[in-house]
Amino acid sequence: MSIITLTTDFGEGSPYVAAMKGVILTIHPEVTIVDVTHSVPAQEIRRGALVLDRVTGRFPDGSIHVAVVDPGVGTERALVYAEIGAQRYLAPDNGLLSRLALRLPPRKIIKLTQREFWLENVSDTFHGRDVLAPVAARLSLGLEPERLGPPLEKLVMLSWPEVRITPTRIAGTILEIDSFGNLVTDVSEEMLAGRPIDERVRIMCGTQKIHGIHRVYGRQPPGTLIALINSHGNLELAVVNGNAARQLDIAEGTPVTLTWE
Amino acid sequence: MSIITLTTDFGEGSPYVAAMKGVILTIHPEVTIVDVTHSVPAQEIRRGALVLDRVTGRFPDGSIHVAVVDPGVGTERALVYAEIGAQRYLAPDNGLLSRLALRLPPRKIIKLTQREFWLENVSDTFHGRDVLAPVAARLSLGLEPERLGPPLEKLVMLSWPEVRITPTRIAGTILEIDSFGNLVTDVSEEMLAGRPIDERVRIMCGTQKIHGIHRVYGRQPPGTLIALINSHGNLELAVVNGNAARQLDIAEGTPVTLTWE
Amino acid sequence: MSIITLTTDFGEGSPYVAAMKGVILTIHPEVTIVDVTHSVPAQEIRRGALVLDRVTGRFPDGSIHVAVVDPGVGTERALVYAEIGAQRYLAPDNGLLSRLALRLPPRKIIKLTQREFWLENVSDTFHGRDVLAPVAARLSLGLEPERLGPPLEKLVMLSWPEVRITPTRIAGTILEIDSFGNLVTDVSEEMLAGRPIDERVRIMCGTQKIHGIHRVYGRQPPGTLIALINSHGNLELAVVNGNAARQLDIAEGTPVTLTWE
Repeated sequence: MSIITLTTDFGEGSPYVAAMKGVILTIHPEVTIVDVTHSVPAQEIRRGALVLDRVTGRFPDGSIHVAVVDPGVGTERALVYAEIGAQRYLAPDNGLLSRLALRLPPRKIIKLTQREFWLENVSDTFHGRDVLAPVAARLSLGLEPERLGPPLEKLVMLSWPEVRITPTRIAGTILEIDSFGNLVTDVSEEMLAGRPIDERVRIMCGTQKIHGIHRVYGRQPPGTLIALINSHGNLELAVVNGNAARQLDIAEGTPVTLTWE
Repeated sequence: MSIITLTTDFGEGSPYVAAMKGVILTIHPEVTIVDVTHSVPAQEIRRGALVLDRVTGRFPDGSIHVAVVDPGVGTERALVYAEIGAQRYLAPDNGLLSRLALRLPPRKIIKLTQREFWLENVSDTFHGRDVLAPVAARLSLGLEPERLGPPLEKLVMLSWPEVRITPTRIAGTILEIDSFGNLVTDVSEEMLAGRPIDERVRIMCGTQKIHGIHRVYGRQPPGTLIALINSHGNLELAVVNGNAARQLDIAEGTPVTLTWE
Repeated sequence: MSIITLTTDFGEGSPYVAAMKGVILTIHPEVTIVDVTHSVPAQEIRRGALVLDRVTGRFPDGSIHVAVVDPGVGTERALVYAEIGAQRYLAPDNGLLSRLALRLPPRKIIKLTQREFWLENVSDTFHGRDVLAPVAARLSLGLEPERLGPPLEKLVMLSWPEVRITPTRIAGTILEIDSFGNLVTDVSEEMLAGRPIDERVRIMCGTQKIHGIHRVYGRQPPGTLIALINSHGNLELAVVNGNAARQLDIAEGTPVTLTWE
């Protein structure tokens, strides 16, 4: 058994995704292919990086995660293989793996240069299909990653906002907005450890003020803006049975501040 | 061979769906996972209930259908396992299985309480991933459902509009609008048995009047509003090569009346 | 191992797709089902034909491609099985296979008439589920296609715009717009063979003029309109890091002219 996942910005239902699956199944018909998402906004490397960081760790050890958000396709940017935690990744080296690598340094990075493992005809505009898909299929059949090319020292890293922590204050950022309109921050459960999360904590975001952090969505009246720890262990702002992003008009990148008096 | 299907309101391409698949495949790498839909409108339990009722019976006997439309996640609502017809279901006990159970009483209902079959860390906001996914994977490996928790007498039932039938009149409701904009009613083929469905039947819905029920979409001129028996055996209003919901501005819940003179 | 792909206009996340999968898996639980796309615009046979032509050749030889864009369902149009290249197809005979058949004449065409291989109850409105899905599953189990019905001489063909080629001029058409807004033409790499593609070629489309054909998206400044050979070997107009269709307001069917002086 082996698993290949796909994460792209091609859009749900894109035939480009199907072309990648056709290439993979032609080389390894028995592999299990799972779509992580194809809804990364076009060319938004950071959004892809956040999805990979949040989801791929849930898959069986040794799963191969192919990620394609690749505005620089056909230019000098490298394509890489990387082992991070118990998972394996194939992606353009443009920062797409940098959120994962921020938390956990890669154990092995290899630059893809050996064309014998690629499709015979490689287009200049679709390396996901012509390079990453066949390489993923061959890895899933047991190919040694060392044969793909030379090792690399490190991945291209994007800069990510840093959470600033003092005894009375935590300053973070709205990192993303999920499909329910919930506002997900980069403030994690661990950062809150040992601090009161009841009415004594005051959370500010845009023009909004919230007191206390809840455990669940469902206990407050519909329409209430609440702060809670979400299923990934991050602080999140949500409107009960509503869409916080739309109702509050708060965008990604907005600062979030927690203070204790 | 075993099959697990997923029905949620997470949206197509949601990474939350992928997280559930990762959990399932970590426990049972050989299982076949099929997406029923992730386009149930957010938190609309009734819409989820209708989809489950219409589609899941098409799957092989013994398939495990995981459904997550769960506005009450983290509150007192139970999570349940139920056997209905030849199929098996895992869902919050909030009415999501009530359309299925209306037609066919469940043979077995079990409340999920045994945490040993769940993920070790259960969040308060994502029981689909932390409870239902691992339980589905374990059932697909042969776990006895009785080990999941104590039996329940019955499921939480929502009230559904009732079709009123007299010798000269059938009064139903537009239950849903499909992706083509067709208006699907709760009037079934069986209810019409023995009655004329040619020009003698008059159908009224909103300000629209139609005479006769057709067998197919394609025989009338484009743009014509027709009534027909759809592929699920329900009376449906459709505009040939068009979008009835948009053109006629008719919403779910609108009454539909059939009369014979 | 065998593979069935699905291409429809049902919309991503449509439960109708899931119903087809349920039928297939009930007959052949071990088959691998792959979604090509369900985002063909409703009832647009040409768009479906283009997708099938572009993507299905990437799949393993002998894969079974089920296509449902079927405005004439329930009328006299036939349902067919066809072998084109190394692939197998099941579709309504309404032109959906005509782009494939234009490039490569079908080796075998069979009209589906033998009801013993269909579902017992065949609706008048969903032959994808009731006829094509069970037939695909049975073919994937080894059923001889000759048993499905009588041979047909040829498929229904749609007329497609023709590319006109002279020594100093190539006149083609914008055939489709992809999910990035790139404008894909019917002018292929082969048609350009032996001609200069540097600044000496002038490309006109709508009110736009471009000089030269590039190899990649990423080397020009963001916002630049460029012409390039895309990953399917077709001439394409694209805005670097942008959406050409939206920015230039150019629709499908717009002529594209290449001239050399």
